[in-house]
Amino acid sequence: MPLTETAARLRTLWHEIAAAARAVTPSTGAPELNGRQTQRLREELRACLEERGGEIAARARAAQAGRLYLSLNAEGRQRFLRTVASFDVDRERIDDLTAQMREAADPEQRRRLEILLRHALEPPRLHLLRRFNSLPEGVKFLVDLRADLIDLAGDDSELRALERDVKELLASWFDVGFLELRRITWESPAALLERLANYEAVHEVRGWPDIKNRLDADRRCFAFFHPLMPAEPLIFIEVALVDELSGEIAALLDQRAPLGMAVAASHAIFYSISNCQRGLVGISFGNALIKRVVDELSSELRSLKTFSTLSPIPGFRAWLEHADEKAAGNGSPHTLRAMLAKRSWHRDPEATEALREPLMRLCAHYLLEERRAGTSRALDPVAHFHLSNGAQVERINWLGDLSPRGMRESAGMLVNYLYRLDQIDENHQAYAERGEIAASNAVKRLCKR
Amino acid sequence: MPLTETAARLRTLWHEIAAAARAVTPSTGAPELNGRQTQRLREELRACLEERGGEIAARARAAQAGRLYLSLNAEGRQRFLRTVASFDVDRERIDDLTAQMREAADPEQRRRLEILLRHALEPPRLHLLRRFNSLPEGVKFLVDLRADLIDLAGDDSELRALERDVKELLASWFDVGFLELRRITWESPAALLERLANYEAVHEVRGWPDIKNRLDADRRCFAFFHPLMPAEPLIFIEVALVDELSGEIAALLDQRAPLGMAVAASHAIFYSISNCQRGLVGISFGNALIKRVVDELSSELRSLKTFSTLSPIPGFRAWLEHADEKAAGNGSPHTLRAMLAKRSWHRDPEATEALREPLMRLCAHYLLEERRAGTSRALDPVAHFHLSNGAQVERINWLGDLSPRGMRESAGMLVNYLYRLDQIDENHQAYAERGEIAASNAVKRLCKR
Amino acid sequence: MPLTETAARLRTLWHEIAAAARAVTPSTGAPELNGRQTQRLREELRACLEERGGEIAARARAAQAGRLYLSLNAEGRQRFLRTVASFDVDRERIDDLTAQMREAADPEQRRRLEILLRHALEPPRLHLLRRFNSLPEGVKFLVDLRADLIDLAGDDSELRALERDVKELLASWFDVGFLELRRITWESPAALLERLANYEAVHEVRGWPDIKNRLDADRRCFAFFHPLMPAEPLIFIEVALVDELSGEIAALLDQRAPLGMAVAASHAIFYSISNCQRGLVGISFGNALIKRVVDELSSELRSLKTFSTLSPIPGFRAWLEHADEKAAGNGSPHTLRAMLAKRSWHRDPEATEALREPLMRLCAHYLLEERRAGTSRALDPVAHFHLSNGAQVERINWLGDLSPRGMRESAGMLVNYLYRLDQIDENHQAYAERGEIAASNAVKRLCKR
Amino acid sequence: MPLTETAARLRTLWHEIAAAARAVTPSTGAPELNGRQTQRLREELRACLEERGGEIAARARAAQAGRLYLSLNAEGRQRFLRTVASFDVDRERIDDLTAQMREAADPEQRRRLEILLRHALEPPRLHLLRRFNSLPEGVKFLVDLRADLIDLAGDDSELRALERDVKELLASWFDVGFLELRRITWESPAALLERLANYEAVHEVRGWPDIKNRLDADRRCFAFFHPLMPAEPLIFIEVALVDELSGEIAALLDQRAPLGMAVAASHAIFYSISNCQRGLVGISFGNALIKRVVDELSSELRSLKTFSTLSPIPGFRAWLEHADEKAAGNGSPHTLRAMLAKRSWHRDPEATEALREPLMRLCAHYLLEERRAGTSRALDPVAHFHLSNGAQVERINWLGDLSPRGMRESAGMLVNYLYRLDQIDENHQAYAERGEIAASNAVKRLCKR
Repeated sequence: MPLTETAARLRTLWHEIAAAARAVTPSTGAPELNGRQTQRLREELRACLEERGGEIAARARAAQAGRLYLSLNAEGRQRFLRTVASFDVDRERIDDLTAQMREAADPEQRRRLEILLRHALEPPRLHLLRRFNSLPEGVKFLVDLRADLIDLAGDDSELRALERDVKELLASWFDVGFLELRRITWESPAALLERLANYEAVHEVRGWPDIKNRLDADRRCFAFFHPLMPAEPLIFIEVALVDELSGEIAALLDQRAPLGMAVAASHAIFYSISNCQRGLVGISFGNALIKRVVDELSSELRSLKTFSTLSPIPGFRAWLEHADEKAAGNGSPHTLRAMLAKRSWHRDPEATEALREPLMRLCAHYLLEERRAGTSRALDPVAHFHLSNGAQVERINWLGDLSPRGMRESAGMLVNYLYRLDQIDENHQAYAERGEIAASNAVKRLCKR
Repeated sequence: MPLTETAARLRTLWHEIAAAARAVTPSTGAPELNGRQTQRLREELRACLEERGGEIAARARAAQAGRLYLSLNAEGRQRFLRTVASFDVDRERIDDLTAQMREAADPEQRRRLEILLRHALEPPRLHLLRRFNSLPEGVKFLVDLRADLIDLAGDDSELRALERDVKELLASWFDVGFLELRRITWESPAALLERLANYEAVHEVRGWPDIKNRLDADRRCFAFFHPLMPAEPLIFIEVALVDELSGEIAALLDQRAPLGMAVAASHAIFYSISNCQRGLVGISFGNALIKRVVDELSSELRSLKTFSTLSPIPGFRAWLEHADEKAAGNGSPHTLRAMLAKRSWHRDPEATEALREPLMRLCAHYLLEERRAGTSRALDPVAHFHLSNGAQVERINWLGDLSPRGMRESAGMLVNYLYRLDQIDENHQAYAERGEIAASNAVKRLCKR
Repeated sequence: MPLTETAARLRTLWHEIAAAARAVTPSTGAPELNGRQTQRLREELRACLEERGGEIAARARAAQAGRLYLSLNAEGRQRFLRTVASFDVDRERIDDLTAQMREAADPEQRRRLEILLRHALEPPRLHLLRRFNSLPEGVKFLVDLRADLIDLAGDDSELRALERDVKELLASWFDVGFLELRRITWESPAALLERLANYEAVHEVRGWPDIKNRLDADRRCFAFFHPLMPAEPLIFIEVALVDELSGEIAALLDQRAPLGMAVAASHAIFYSISNCQRGLVGISFGNALIKRVVDELSSELRSLKTFSTLSPIPGFRAWLEHADEKAAGNGSPHTLRAMLAKRSWHRDPEATEALREPLMRLCAHYLLEERRAGTSRALDPVAHFHLSNGAQVERINWLGDLSPRGMRESAGMLVNYLYRLDQIDENHQAYAERGEIAASNAVKRLCKR
Repeated sequence: MPLTETAARLRTLWHEIAAAARAVTPSTGAPELNGRQTQRLREELRACLEERGGEIAARARAAQAGRLYLSLNAEGRQRFLRTVASFDVDRERIDDLTAQMREAADPEQRRRLEILLRHALEPPRLHLLRRFNSLPEGVKFLVDLRADLIDLAGDDSELRALERDVKELLASWFDVGFLELRRITWESPAALLERLANYEAVHEVRGWPDIKNRLDADRRCFAFFHPLMPAEPLIFIEVALVDELSGEIAALLDQRAPLGMAVAASHAIFYSISNCQRGLVGISFGNALIKRVVDELSSELRSLKTFSTLSPIPGFRAWLEHADEKAAGNGSPHTLRAMLAKRSWHRDPEATEALREPLMRLCAHYLLEERRAGTSRALDPVAHFHLSNGAQVERINWLGDLSPRGMRESAGMLVNYLYRLDQIDENHQAYAERGEIAASNAVKRLCKR
């Protein structure tokens, strides 16, 4: 017996206000925050921090400030955030405590001082931020506030410090151990599906029939959720259940393709993974997701034998622009670049014939050999993600993604990263410790040529 | 579409292990932890902390350690906890950073050093503890672990430091803004009702018919829950819906009393509030609870006009033992104490006649005048709780609670704290800032006499 | 703890089969049912009816037959249904029982014979149909089967008898007392919203943004559901919460209109009511729906004062085609008809000027005076529906609906039927017993002129 | 978003009224129904049947009548029911229709008359009864009303006819295809567990710890529910997960027995099956239940190999009282009966030694050979139930149930009926068609001796 009438009514009211507020901000010409208002805000925040009038009053003040924030335009929000940021640590007290610590002989005393120092180093603005969780969707509010901060901080060192504080707060709440995996289907709330469509970062969603197709009986879609933000997905993955290793994205997104039989499928193809919350950048969930989804699918569908991605190679073209002769082997990168510069080269049989072999070789080289400067990490971010999870580079697919973005970033190619349950741990370890990249013989051969 | 088969199966397995483990520990003669095992545990915990083998492996290690912990007896747990506690801060690094801070001229550099210092002051055991939340009921595990620590720490300064760390971690998760108010009824899970009965700290539950009576149609029961520990109540309150200000607890607990009509009730009597989680001692939820419940009841039942508690005065008898002549006014405390020392004095009409007036006066004095040493807080803890919430002392009830405990602690008296919606804020403020205690004229007169 | 793995797996499998089956039938060229197959079907149905091999086996047979049915094209289904229909009553037994009844002297014997006769008059096909409810969505299967029967029966008296039997069976299950009112929001399952969009019969849904607009914070949508068919709405109603009596549908369907404040709205406008299940034609739910929705809205939103529809007048233009001089009063219907025959007359200021007064008068006359032949029922079906519910004809709105359908059926006009809580019963009674139609003075005056 | 405030409030109110009403009736001295009241009731029921004032009004009248019914004592209810029963068929119309039918030549006309006759044979009281489903728990109301009718009908032929009508109505709603299997655990609502404890018909529940033990991690409990009566179980089964074929009930009910590991169990022992609704007597669900539960358990716990009951032999002692020499074989039934007549013979080693062999032989004979007069059904009702489901008589357990009831009915013995998945169909068929009873060789040998 959860929500009650009053609470529900307040929630409704809040949603109306928040929706109205969102409709105007921060891009449209909504109110800034003038000097007097800023002063008043500072006082309210201080009263909130000091719990004047008790905890309930403090939360009411925070809610009030939250509503104000939502009603502001970009400039107003910047001022608001700077006001919050100004609730910084007390540096004199810190210096005083460190001075005492130098003198402290007794270990017990030292320990006490360490704790006092730890608390003194927590800026009051952190406590202020916590108050915002009394808003009806307080955690989401803070997540979005961090997204704003990332946009608005710029060079402002105070705002950047505030941004780091919010990140730390969110990281403590968004521990991966708290996440819930949920399956998304066509029976899921429309509001949730609308959000997924907006968040889809790999293969753009083209309307509701496209969503429906991606949730059909021969598909699976899973997302991680957090109990404190139950309506908002954090990250989601789209899976096709098919009979062979997919090499082409168009076939999977074709809404007129006949429906497959999930219970008889042998291959699970992970063809899209997207993060949903910009405000959670840098707090990672993806690693756990794939492992959990493989578990789920294995137990639901016994005939599945192969788990693989169908992934873009988003850094390939950018790298190619600057690749030198050596990397390119016997093919001249200049010539290749010239050919790739032509629009719609993929529709020209001669061009594709000429490009196929050298590009695939270069791609294999890019995936298996190129590293991020000064590290043993794969240069390609998607490759790094899957290799860290223990996958291997299985197959490079020529002209697997002809979408504008696929052509622009990956030269039309897609790669399968294969998850072999019996090798995940070993691959992970070899990559993490020694930078060794697991790959199929076919891809290794391509690379060597 | 939440839980899936595998997850459900693992959960079942875990519950069986945990239940089996709990059945033997910590009081029964289950395994300790010998030197070699302790050494091995230390290595596993270090591997877990360093995420050897990736995050999934780290969580598996934490789960393993958690199961070990549950299987240990008190001595074994103490060793286990000391091993965890030994993952302390790096003091050299702290000294190094404070030294750098002294030199730092640039504000930006200073700020960076502060953050580094803050992190350095977070002991690694805190990160270790977080890993335990990957257990199926990880948050509850940590809450219970803190309860163990409170029992086991004793003088051990390392364990006490660990206890404070766990408290801090839990306080950051159990923010009152995250709590959910739920109504408890006879339709609630039996497992939950069993827990409530065990947690009831004011008026002991005497079997299931007693529980059922307290959840009948003319009663209400509400509890706060946290999304990360959804099956465990944090604090709960029991309410009777009646036609007048109750003064006797027996009438409310009488299972054969006729059922009242909730929709026609004018008075809501809060006759019991109990905290449920020993591991959350010092993290307070009660303040918010009463306010929320008054809101709930007002909106559900329009005929309610009066919100009041029927509360024990748990410190009265102890105080009386040492009260001096002055406090007692014209009655001699010695004589009173002698009379109260007789068993069953409350069944002796003469004794009750003789005691009634002086005891009620003393009680009024105790509630309105006595303060905790050196503060303006009311001496009685229950009084302090309700006065902080903005209630007023409304009526003292002679022989309102004849239970052994009621006689022993409160000399058989009960007090009504009245929550008047239009005075809560004012009362709260006057008490918090100036130590002024609101009281009805009747109680004030009693006190003055 | 409801559904389990096996059940869920079977359900998945069934849905895949059913979806595949639906994709081919009944319009596309899917299998018919040849003579031998029909013979085999008859035998299986007989075995099912006689429960050969036990009840479980009987249900398995029914499921098998159900799957076969779904895979057939129109002709095949017709043969299938005729096979089912052939399980008719035993006429000899009926004659025998009626003969006995004529002789029966003893009242107790007579009563016994009546029961036997009642059972003998229940055709075995009814028992056969019941078996189909063991399909995963058995009730929906029967509802759709009746929809097929309505289409396929034609002059076939056996199929028409079968259709009546199915209707009777469904009517016994779909008692209005079993219905659940649920609010539909943008948080409802996408699959449900897709269904609503397809079922919307009054103002066609133009894509998902249109759906979202109709479920916004200043709207309400309610539907009746039945526990035996929980995913399928039976009938639904769309409501706008506004500040005045709406007269124009375009304003309500405008997706760019600013969001209103539901909590402050004074008027609830019911602008669309649609039945969803063709297979439940003749089993009525609408009467109860409006009453329940008015209750819901009154209790959720206290500021609502006026409950009214904004309804089409679907029979007006058809009636006007044959209206004679008398009805038209002083305006010649011939002239009017000629003007209305022009395309886009509503965009011609002269035409609208000339038409406005006579058309509104005629419309008032049509609504208040015209009756279905030989009855006291209002001729217009929508008018009859709302008048039966106790509403009154409140206002006729000139050019309220410029959609092609609105122009074609209602000459662009819309009417408000007002639900005054204090007059509903009286209006209902007066209309039901004496055919008196309640109307505002304004509409009455229009009619009289 | 289901129930709303008003509906919830009404429901609360109804529950309070109903609870208050139930508290006084039908045994306690609550109001009867005098002549004038009966007359008034008849008029109200007629108005309800004729839908005077519309459908809503009709339902309000039914609710009113329902509340009246609940407030009456046994005598009052009898009068109430007789008043309902008096809404009987119109016999003149029936005679008229049968007369027309004799004349009818045209098949189409005959068919029409048959339908009219069918409707004429449906007594109006049936339509009246349907109205009661608008009560908040209308279906449960009718189920309980039938239970009352069974008690109160006696020789009254009208009440018996009414009882048959209610049964028919309920049978049409409680089709086994609509039932939902749910697992019951210690997390289930206390109110539900309380009901189960009251309904347990085989091994009496001795308090809440006993309930908890029966729902522990090494147990399973499943019940069938109907969507129209979602809070009320229809039938439930209790299962122990163990390592061998259980022969003793005390071991299973021992609350201090160590907890087993469900995931490792090889045997599922069905040790109790109870029907819950007296008002559904004669409408059978048990057949489907065991099959569904075996499915559930197989898919949840892969290590289960054996599914068996541990059942009483409730008719054994009664049969033994009249068994003749022949059945008893070489042991004299007279002597046995004399020995069994002694109290506590099972604690006398000599008696148990002397009785063991002959009683077990007789029991085997009773189970395998004795039939219900004139049929091929096993005489023992529990044996018949399991044999119909396809089980075999596996083992007779000496002194398996020493409870008073077990001693009184089954002479302390229990029997295992084994469900072998690969033989269920065959066994069912052989028993249903030819009365062949499947049994283990051991039991067959016992019988032959």
